[in-house]
Amino acid sequence: MLEGLRIVEISSFVAAPLGGMTLAQLGAEVVRVDPVGGAADLGRWPLAPSGASLLWTGMNKGKKSVTVDFRSPEGREVVTRLAADAGIVLTNAVGRDWLTHEALSAVRPDLIHLQIEGRHDGTPAVDYTVNAELGFPLVTGPADHAAPVNHVLPAWDVACGLYAAVGLLAAERRRSRTGEGARIRLPLHDVALATAGNLGFLAEAQLGGRRPRIGNHLYGGFARDFTLADDTRIMVVALTGRHFADLCRVTGHTGTVAELARLLNADFAADGDRYRHREALAALFAPWFAGRALPDVEREFTGTSVLWAPYRRFHEIDLTGNPMLGEIDQPGVGRLRAPASPLDTGDRAARRAPVPAPRLGEHTDAVLTRLGLDAGSLRAKGVVA
Amino acid sequence: MLEGLRIVEISSFVAAPLGGMTLAQLGAEVVRVDPVGGAADLGRWPLAPSGASLLWTGMNKGKKSVTVDFRSPEGREVVTRLAADAGIVLTNAVGRDWLTHEALSAVRPDLIHLQIEGRHDGTPAVDYTVNAELGFPLVTGPADHAAPVNHVLPAWDVACGLYAAVGLLAAERRRSRTGEGARIRLPLHDVALATAGNLGFLAEAQLGGRRPRIGNHLYGGFARDFTLADDTRIMVVALTGRHFADLCRVTGHTGTVAELARLLNADFAADGDRYRHREALAALFAPWFAGRALPDVEREFTGTSVLWAPYRRFHEIDLTGNPMLGEIDQPGVGRLRAPASPLDTGDRAARRAPVPAPRLGEHTDAVLTRLGLDAGSLRAKGVVA
Repeated sequence: MLEGLRIVEISSFVAAPLGGMTLAQLGAEVVRVDPVGGAADLGRWPLAPSGASLLWTGMNKGKKSVTVDFRSPEGREVVTRLAADAGIVLTNAVGRDWLTHEALSAVRPDLIHLQIEGRHDGTPAVDYTVNAELGFPLVTGPADHAAPVNHVLPAWDVACGLYAAVGLLAAERRRSRTGEGARIRLPLHDVALATAGNLGFLAEAQLGGRRPRIGNHLYGGFARDFTLADDTRIMVVALTGRHFADLCRVTGHTGTVAELARLLNADFAADGDRYRHREALAALFAPWFAGRALPDVEREFTGTSVLWAPYRRFHEIDLTGNPMLGEIDQPGVGRLRAPASPLDTGDRAARRAPVPAPRLGEHTDAVLTRLGLDAGSLRAKGVVA
Repeated sequence: MLEGLRIVEISSFVAAPLGGMTLAQLGAEVVRVDPVGGAADLGRWPLAPSGASLLWTGMNKGKKSVTVDFRSPEGREVVTRLAADAGIVLTNAVGRDWLTHEALSAVRPDLIHLQIEGRHDGTPAVDYTVNAELGFPLVTGPADHAAPVNHVLPAWDVACGLYAAVGLLAAERRRSRTGEGARIRLPLHDVALATAGNLGFLAEAQLGGRRPRIGNHLYGGFARDFTLADDTRIMVVALTGRHFADLCRVTGHTGTVAELARLLNADFAADGDRYRHREALAALFAPWFAGRALPDVEREFTGTSVLWAPYRRFHEIDLTGNPMLGEIDQPGVGRLRAPASPLDTGDRAARRAPVPAPRLGEHTDAVLTRLGLDAGSLRAKGVVA
């Protein structure tokens, strides 16, 4: 969908690369420019047996890769020309005067420049420090656990990368109508703070609420993990009164739960009462789960509204028949299953298949030549590689 | 930036409402259409002392709210006209024939329609079931913990909402160039699967890697929580060799760590060796942290590259001086601090301040009147409210 959109990305790690890749997977041309030898994320774990970074290849699918000596004035001039030509820059590089909106918009006045940074005041922060400050680690994990529990998914980086993609598209929409460029700053800490605010965590705290640590229960509803007879663990979610009524019916507890509601003066059609009495309700349902293996539970829940899923390890995820996934030949790694964009644009035939990440510097010559530069001579001088 | 963009949203809970709000906060007109009496998320926790949902108000800031009787043919006709007029529909409603791309594009051929659903095959899924299936809960939490650890942040819903915003902007860009509408499907499960793939988790598993549960350590690097003399917990992150060298220097362990590297035949300038020997390194640093209170640590880390932050509870988050936050008068709740978009579009004076969520149905009359409908007569018949 984004044919004709061109972006230069000077990036590393997760948020900025994901922002560019999100647009590349929808048809934009994204040129990632790295210093010769690669940026700090080139060896980031997880690694393939070959030693190649699966984070790097995962984050740069479908981009072009150009490598330039950032320390030489001529190299910087090459990056400036690339940026001016594309008209859109996405970066999380800090402390480089020549990559700022101010510097680059002097060459391209209608430049769209999106700078990802740590905090609004310019101080650094990364996903794992932002997460610590935001409050989530102290309400995650078993109720009797006192220490913080860090997340494994860098959720703030992911959200930040997607906000970056939104910001670039919004600015390009305006530019196409008004001719106006944009200077956009996107602090990772603000992404997290805004999300905590949007979900009601900040307002709840401001109004005096103190979020408890409740293990695998869902706050304000009925949802929890249960262990089955075959030791499978499953997550069971009853978001609405209908889900909950189905859960009661399948487990044969409609009568018991109605009686419990009467005894406790509770209304289990309401979220709050299902939540308040979650331990009693879970204790009531647990023996039903403990007496059944996964296939039994699957059969009995089929055709009901109850939301549930078994917990899986990464190598156990069911990937069969998913049209988003394709096979790619990833340079430096080999044959891999890889995801395209989760945005399915309808026409199955036209759905964009996953494209491998480039080799570092793979497109230096092609991109520079298109710009009218003498790639061979620049390479001989060590300005590009 | 999105002035003139108009979206009709038929949504509930987190992903779809966040998608619309993300665009509303950048200037789009987003009309959320709900059934009379509200959708299933109207009472979703957290709640204000007044009983109003802080999730609902948090997710619908800056939108217009219209309520319509979805069960009456006339009500459905009103929604169809709203959708055709706006030209863009965002929904997570399923099982409603009259809200599909097929039905609505019959009235507006260049309609952009984005449907959030559970899985690619149309079966239902929610954040907490998707998360269980994706592998993260079994590698989150203390290393000696056997059970899954659910996340508290609905990270997949957040990512899904932001992908929805990206998808709508990308489709609208194409429509403005080609006149072509779009039918986009966005399965929540695919958002999670794509993200796990993008971050390298799927490739690692496919290539035989088995991600261990490592508590609060960072996989493939050196980062961990430490406890201070005043019982504060802080997260400390050394992403690069420079960060790590600074950490060694500040804690007075440059020599010890060099000697340790020699003894272990390790290269602590490399990510992998810092990770492999993380327990030995953490044990070396721990007494330094245990002997200092927060102000001491803050002073000693200032001016170094070490990334660190104290763990906070939601009510302890430092919100002072953040230009993204503003005060709003939220109907049904009262005076609240609320976030604007984390996308700071540069010109401070023009930065869009946070706008409260509407009261349910607040804009029914105004929006219908603009469409040329007789709101009073429809209200009298119970078609709208």
